[in-house]
Amino acid sequence: MPLAHPPVPGSALWVHTHPRRESLGGHLFRAGTEALSRTRTLHTSDLYSQRFDPVFGPSDLGPDPDAPGNLAVQAGRASQEGMASPEVLAEQAKLADAELLILQFPLWWYGPPAVLKGWIDRVFTEGFAYDGTLDPESGMPRRYGDGGLAGRRALVIVTAGDDSRTLGPRGLSGDLDALLFPLTHGALWYVGIDVLDLHVIHDADGLDAEGVGRETERLLTRLDGLAGEQPIPYRRLRDGDYPHDLRALDPVLLPGRSDLEIHREPAPHLAR
Amino acid sequence: MPLAHPPVPGSALWVHTHPRRESLGGHLFRAGTEALSRTRTLHTSDLYSQRFDPVFGPSDLGPDPDAPGNLAVQAGRASQEGMASPEVLAEQAKLADAELLILQFPLWWYGPPAVLKGWIDRVFTEGFAYDGTLDPESGMPRRYGDGGLAGRRALVIVTAGDDSRTLGPRGLSGDLDALLFPLTHGALWYVGIDVLDLHVIHDADGLDAEGVGRETERLLTRLDGLAGEQPIPYRRLRDGDYPHDLRALDPVLLPGRSDLEIHREPAPHLAR
Repeated sequence: MPLAHPPVPGSALWVHTHPRRESLGGHLFRAGTEALSRTRTLHTSDLYSQRFDPVFGPSDLGPDPDAPGNLAVQAGRASQEGMASPEVLAEQAKLADAELLILQFPLWWYGPPAVLKGWIDRVFTEGFAYDGTLDPESGMPRRYGDGGLAGRRALVIVTAGDDSRTLGPRGLSGDLDALLFPLTHGALWYVGIDVLDLHVIHDADGLDAEGVGRETERLLTRLDGLAGEQPIPYRRLRDGDYPHDLRALDPVLLPGRSDLEIHREPAPHLAR
Repeated sequence: MPLAHPPVPGSALWVHTHPRRESLGGHLFRAGTEALSRTRTLHTSDLYSQRFDPVFGPSDLGPDPDAPGNLAVQAGRASQEGMASPEVLAEQAKLADAELLILQFPLWWYGPPAVLKGWIDRVFTEGFAYDGTLDPESGMPRRYGDGGLAGRRALVIVTAGDDSRTLGPRGLSGDLDALLFPLTHGALWYVGIDVLDLHVIHDADGLDAEGVGRETERLLTRLDGLAGEQPIPYRRLRDGDYPHDLRALDPVLLPGRSDLEIHREPAPHLAR
């Protein structure tokens, strides 16, 4: 099925979230965008600088915001008809073009800052990012590995105060891959975007100048090699691993397990 | 160690998040607060009605917001000195009194709406909700099961469009307990608040009048019996399950596992 919004080859959108220009986040944003803009058509959304309003509300609902009905459907219609707020339409235009989406943020309370959560809440509207129709070829719903934003890849860059063990697989604060699953799987993969492995800067509050230099280099190297990376192998809804009513993982797959990792395809050498 | 903010016995704070008064969320909020106010001193924060600004930024940082340094430390100092914004100080005053905290929200992109995330980002400041000092008796950091808001319990009420299987242990969208772990463990438990089992209203978009009546009754019954409930047995940092450097779970506990459930105490009859 053709993509609803075919991306422009070579284009990218970098969404940046940090309240302070002079910060590690601000520094990495400037270094990263400067490097990326040499090889790509790069748009940016600096959510703090542009004072993006993260509160989904009446301005997202078109000319009759109090009309009874489903909020998501109403916001979707408003956006489709160009009646959503200009700031949301502008973000959608940048996102529609982008083949690569970069979301960069500091980890606050083990998730994205409110302004980035609200960017998702407001910009990923029905009819643009996803819809309730079925793929005519497969008869499957177009979500989780398919959707309005298929054909894109996303890199999530996180600056975290905690160290790698505290955010590791058995870490005190929970594994970061699991903590950010609502963003990577529940939002990005839901609308069809392939998600690359997280890029995490640990101990972000305590880096000295040498550490900042090292992390800058590491980010630029990562950006340089993105084209050769494989995305996280989240299961595609259309592949049949959630049979029958499409609600739960097939009981024969990874039986007995209920952790979030079951939603990734196991590596080929592991028994199912 | 004495509590930084001893709650007022019998008091509660209900934080409500829904953009529309005429909604299932709005209905449950009115029914629930009416019932709870008969037996408790109840404060409410209706984040949409009061137009709460969820964007942590300069107004949280006191008189010199651009001073270099750690944002959390700076926001904590501003709040301690009464220099934070009036809306944050007002929320902290309500929260300081409350023995029971209720957070009610619709599930958007598998997490809380931005306005509630930002309520946490802005209100849970250092020195109020947590601090870096050690408990003089145990010598342990006062977080994860201890902290500025210890002595309180929280009930999280979620209205979700998905059904119980899709959000269940092997559900397509991920287990809701895991999806909300950043809120329940990473924010509430981090600052010492005991968290009760989630109260989830599934299929929330499709309820008919009978379904609304049934869910209202179920919520009121739940509220009525809260005093007899046991909170989620998240591990307390001070109990020693994260030994040595307090970063990762003791390798002898639930060896080989790395899912988020390892941060709960196993039921007594299960082998460690």
